[in-house]
Amino acid sequence: MCAMSGELTVDLSALVRNYKTLCGLSAPSCEIACVVKADSYGLGADKCAPALYQAGARSFFVATSAEGLALRNAIPADSDIYVLGGLSTDQKQAQLCQLNNVTPVLNSLSEVKQVCESGSGDPVALHFDTGMNRLGLRADEAELLYEKSSMLEKLDVRLIMSHFASSEEADNPDNKTQLARFNKIIECIKPLCPDARYAIANSGGLFLGADYHLDMLRAGLALYGGHPSSSLEENPMEPVISLGVPVLQVKSAKKGEGAGYNSTYHFDEDTDLAIVSIGYADGLLRSLSNKGVFYWRGYALPIRGRISMDSVICDLASVPPEEYPALGDMVEVIGPNQSIDALAASADTISYEILTSLGARFKRTYKQSEK
Amino acid sequence: MCAMSGELTVDLSALVRNYKTLCGLSAPSCEIACVVKADSYGLGADKCAPALYQAGARSFFVATSAEGLALRNAIPADSDIYVLGGLSTDQKQAQLCQLNNVTPVLNSLSEVKQVCESGSGDPVALHFDTGMNRLGLRADEAELLYEKSSMLEKLDVRLIMSHFASSEEADNPDNKTQLARFNKIIECIKPLCPDARYAIANSGGLFLGADYHLDMLRAGLALYGGHPSSSLEENPMEPVISLGVPVLQVKSAKKGEGAGYNSTYHFDEDTDLAIVSIGYADGLLRSLSNKGVFYWRGYALPIRGRISMDSVICDLASVPPEEYPALGDMVEVIGPNQSIDALAASADTISYEILTSLGARFKRTYKQSEK
Repeated sequence: MCAMSGELTVDLSALVRNYKTLCGLSAPSCEIACVVKADSYGLGADKCAPALYQAGARSFFVATSAEGLALRNAIPADSDIYVLGGLSTDQKQAQLCQLNNVTPVLNSLSEVKQVCESGSGDPVALHFDTGMNRLGLRADEAELLYEKSSMLEKLDVRLIMSHFASSEEADNPDNKTQLARFNKIIECIKPLCPDARYAIANSGGLFLGADYHLDMLRAGLALYGGHPSSSLEENPMEPVISLGVPVLQVKSAKKGEGAGYNSTYHFDEDTDLAIVSIGYADGLLRSLSNKGVFYWRGYALPIRGRISMDSVICDLASVPPEEYPALGDMVEVIGPNQSIDALAASADTISYEILTSLGARFKRTYKQSEK
Repeated sequence: MCAMSGELTVDLSALVRNYKTLCGLSAPSCEIACVVKADSYGLGADKCAPALYQAGARSFFVATSAEGLALRNAIPADSDIYVLGGLSTDQKQAQLCQLNNVTPVLNSLSEVKQVCESGSGDPVALHFDTGMNRLGLRADEAELLYEKSSMLEKLDVRLIMSHFASSEEADNPDNKTQLARFNKIIECIKPLCPDARYAIANSGGLFLGADYHLDMLRAGLALYGGHPSSSLEENPMEPVISLGVPVLQVKSAKKGEGAGYNSTYHFDEDTDLAIVSIGYADGLLRSLSNKGVFYWRGYALPIRGRISMDSVICDLASVPPEEYPALGDMVEVIGPNQSIDALAASADTISYEILTSLGARFKRTYKQSEK
């Protein structure tokens, strides 16, 4: 153990239990696919994906071809890997994807044409944009595709998908609108792609009702312990990560003195402090300056002043002096007292950004646990 | 080249020219030390430090012992590496540091005592806190140290340092106060540590005047091309990095439609869009949602809606249709049209956080250039 770096622990058993919880909550005919893009939201796709495969997962989603090829080395060949970012424009990489059952999600008519013209007959997924204006074919492109059904005949379409813009907002009427649009697409395209499966929902979509599950649901945040839906007061997922960071120094500030860069906080009385080893270079968003809180033995330690690149100033006022942490003791950033969602709320962002920002300097430990 | 990932280019010649510029601007007796913590602010210490060593740099600063030991593999043994985070509490790591001329910066009296008691006689640096309330011995601890001069006699103190809280604010009176406090410390401690050198300034400190330079100046941001001081209208440093990201799709949105997650932007007319391959998982701060701008051939492409994990929706309204980018074309995130400081200002942060957040999915290229 090196006590001078933060320690990030990923509980692979909790990850797997979350996967199984989602399998249990989804419609019987719905497969839970695992979104492991961005290195499993920062937690390590080389560790998370094999654990999920072991638990029965067979469909995985990544963002880029490079991620897909790296993932192929981590999980057996009988699993499907879909690349959300579409075809690689790099010929060699595109070929490697073909050879390794790494399937592109085609997002535009031009990508569809490219695959048709190549005559490869390789499996593809099709992505339709039902209201997010991000990736995917629009309604007018979909029309063209139905008209030129000869194009579809040249494709081995395995999956037809869309994506919700607001599925975590259970009452948002856009969810219903997007589903209706997607169902209309299914109606038109099903006769042309008899073997394809259909998917629109992400983690939040699971809690919109069984109508939304279709053949496959792409679970991401919920797998990693994030709160997936406003329809649930309590988060039904287990926390997967914890993060502790060591104390570098315990010291005192005098009344009236400032804290950190540009003295954006002033102490209104003499205050004892713990300087801890985490900063924005570790992914602790600088927007948590003067806002975030860490924990020591359950006592809240507010962040004072600006977050530095490598360190943070914490206020020990709530801790009885006889319980002060010592040099090297580990302060809780994420754990029983602070979920990833709570930390995200303090930073005015979402837990996804907390996860994907977790830094490279932490010592990472993967553990198994019983519930 | 894989066109579906962003491409980050680090210009090592520009880095070296910045180092030489700083050498030229500093007082003749002042050594420019290089701050390469957090993996050279995210740019790759294994590439940046050797280039700086080659150019003559001999003193380097890192944040943790692990960084120090990794750096020792990258630069020759006749260079000094200082660890700002202090002693490692891990015995084995601490020993490795001793063996490899990786020198701890002692931040507290308890660390000083620990080294004294070990009787190792190894080189150390001492850090005094002159007003930031972050790391370093406070005035009262300094007094104790002078009184117990026997402690200092047991130490091989090579460097005595402090750190400015607001050096980039040329008119901030705190700079003068901190320097005065540090000069008082020097006065007291110099007779006890005759061989030590003295340092307080970071990049911003260079532009406060020669009185502030002392024996050594720790340059960080300025090396990497950031604007170091409010006293200068124009940034005297050369840009070191550029970042381009590929277009995944060009498409159209209809008047009234929303963009991205939770439709936080609505188009007030039919609008053509480029979806590009970068997201908050690549370190593009989510706080740039609806605020940031990318560039294509000099045309500004405003970000519409929320930044996703792996993609961003850009508005093409300013681009003549005949000049639209094609799939795979590289859009500028950082480059001639947008400095790291400009991007940071849009995100309501500092360029340091922009640099240290640069993601792992980018293809990184290190180049040489002539000015």
